[in-house]
Amino acid sequence: MALVCDGALRILDQTLLPHEEKWIEIRSPDDMIREIQRLGVRGAPLIGVAAALALAQYAESGADQTQLKNAAQKISAARPTAVNLMAAVNRLAPLADNPKRFIAEAEAIFEEDVALCEAMAKRASDFIQDGDRILTHCNTGALATVGVGTALGAIRKAHESGKKIHVFVDETRPLLQGSRLTAWELGKLGIGYSLVCDNMAGALMARGEVRKVFVGADRIARNGDVANKIGTYPLAVLAKYHSIPFYVVAPKSTLDPDCGSGADIPIEIRDGDEVRFGKSPRNCEVWNPAFDVTPRSLISAIILDDRIL
Amino acid sequence: MALVCDGALRILDQTLLPHEEKWIEIRSPDDMIREIQRLGVRGAPLIGVAAALALAQYAESGADQTQLKNAAQKISAARPTAVNLMAAVNRLAPLADNPKRFIAEAEAIFEEDVALCEAMAKRASDFIQDGDRILTHCNTGALATVGVGTALGAIRKAHESGKKIHVFVDETRPLLQGSRLTAWELGKLGIGYSLVCDNMAGALMARGEVRKVFVGADRIARNGDVANKIGTYPLAVLAKYHSIPFYVVAPKSTLDPDCGSGADIPIEIRDGDEVRFGKSPRNCEVWNPAFDVTPRSLISAIILDDRIL
Repeated sequence: MALVCDGALRILDQTLLPHEEKWIEIRSPDDMIREIQRLGVRGAPLIGVAAALALAQYAESGADQTQLKNAAQKISAARPTAVNLMAAVNRLAPLADNPKRFIAEAEAIFEEDVALCEAMAKRASDFIQDGDRILTHCNTGALATVGVGTALGAIRKAHESGKKIHVFVDETRPLLQGSRLTAWELGKLGIGYSLVCDNMAGALMARGEVRKVFVGADRIARNGDVANKIGTYPLAVLAKYHSIPFYVVAPKSTLDPDCGSGADIPIEIRDGDEVRFGKSPRNCEVWNPAFDVTPRSLISAIILDDRIL
Repeated sequence: MALVCDGALRILDQTLLPHEEKWIEIRSPDDMIREIQRLGVRGAPLIGVAAALALAQYAESGADQTQLKNAAQKISAARPTAVNLMAAVNRLAPLADNPKRFIAEAEAIFEEDVALCEAMAKRASDFIQDGDRILTHCNTGALATVGVGTALGAIRKAHESGKKIHVFVDETRPLLQGSRLTAWELGKLGIGYSLVCDNMAGALMARGEVRKVFVGADRIARNGDVANKIGTYPLAVLAKYHSIPFYVVAPKSTLDPDCGSGADIPIEIRDGDEVRFGKSPRNCEVWNPAFDVTPRSLISAIILDDRIL
């Protein structure tokens, strides 16, 4: 859990993990927008819940209908790719004239995320066999949701049901959600793992070390194309080349009926300093997309909370 | 040029580039072994030359035949994958009874590297067209050789002949030879480039941004399989999937007739701290291979100094 709402609304600063656990109090929608943008709070499902709770807090503090609608519009634009953010805001915005219902709906979004995680993690864990060696990318666990997570939730459920699993964790450049967050979560859960750089996954597969790939999703288009953390697409190509099953685990709220295909999904381009990080020539040109699109043809199954695509 | 031998033998400390240009004086074979192992001096052709010159310096200082042979054996084992190191030592070792010929042979190895680079870079540059957008990995330029380089030498020759080129530079985790060294070289040469993380190359290819891939090699087996910097193999798989030509540029000294296939090439596994670098949970398990093997079937052409395979 990386977000609590017990009187105060607080988020666990994910930029400082695993070496520091610092909670940041959120006092306004603008506070939450800043944390969403700098990835203090991150993970497609979590930023949807975080936005909803920040708006509910604003409603509780007495914001009027116009203020709520403006804040909702602003927070839904904080990051462009994960559809969960817009989906949460779109559920709340029509209730802006009724603070009580507005707040109750935000609480429902929070509670639903826990239930969605349970359902999809349980369903996806059936795809994991005893002895499996699973490659995963980015962070899709308890830090990315308010429940057990998506892809990492499935791994956790399989582990808790007694299956022996080894996980290969892609470090996930540039912001290292794999080495900082997924490794930390796996350690806490007592699940064995090996950390690798993103560019080592191919060699692992060539050696026959990887039995399955499990990833999450930030947005799923109508045709089944999936936007997810940059580096997902090359893993899917490699998995196909090596005949390794490639699974996407996500809640149904990640489906976007308004996107016909992956080409319609807006991809966030982030600051080049995340890639340079003091190592490259200063101010050199950088291309830093935060996500890529994996076509449906490379995906063995998309495992939702309520069905399998 | 990252190595000079003008009275003193000195190497440019490649671990500090691009922000600091510090030259380290080498006074013994052990000094050079240490620098080879910590990648103060790196690049398959360069470490062959560096080993030869360190042994020549030892011969000049009066080392006897036994001392020379022992030092040769020790330095040839400094790193296991790049065959250039063993090839250089194997040329010198039989001359250990004749210091004058021993030293002359080391000087010949140095001078040959310059000529080999010129020849292969010129030959490989014919594969580059005006307007090409080329992806490269690791560093294969003047810092990796004592000449113009291998793959990056070809890009340089094409640029110098007036072809307009844009280069996509893979940062090359874990040690960032792309963002630290290749970006620095391209900047000095005035060749336009964009830096990307290794896991972004797939998205670049999917967008049609990459016309060709050029990489170097650390060892080429008899069947044409190529060992090169970790991350090369997934690029080759991605290039094949996107029907993008994938070229390997190397001197003939990188051919190893004693290796039947890539499976026979020893792959160096390096310290996990290179991957952790203070970001992951302390002491977490890491798999850190420095190289991977690309099968011949994924390579469009291997361009040597004297012929094309």
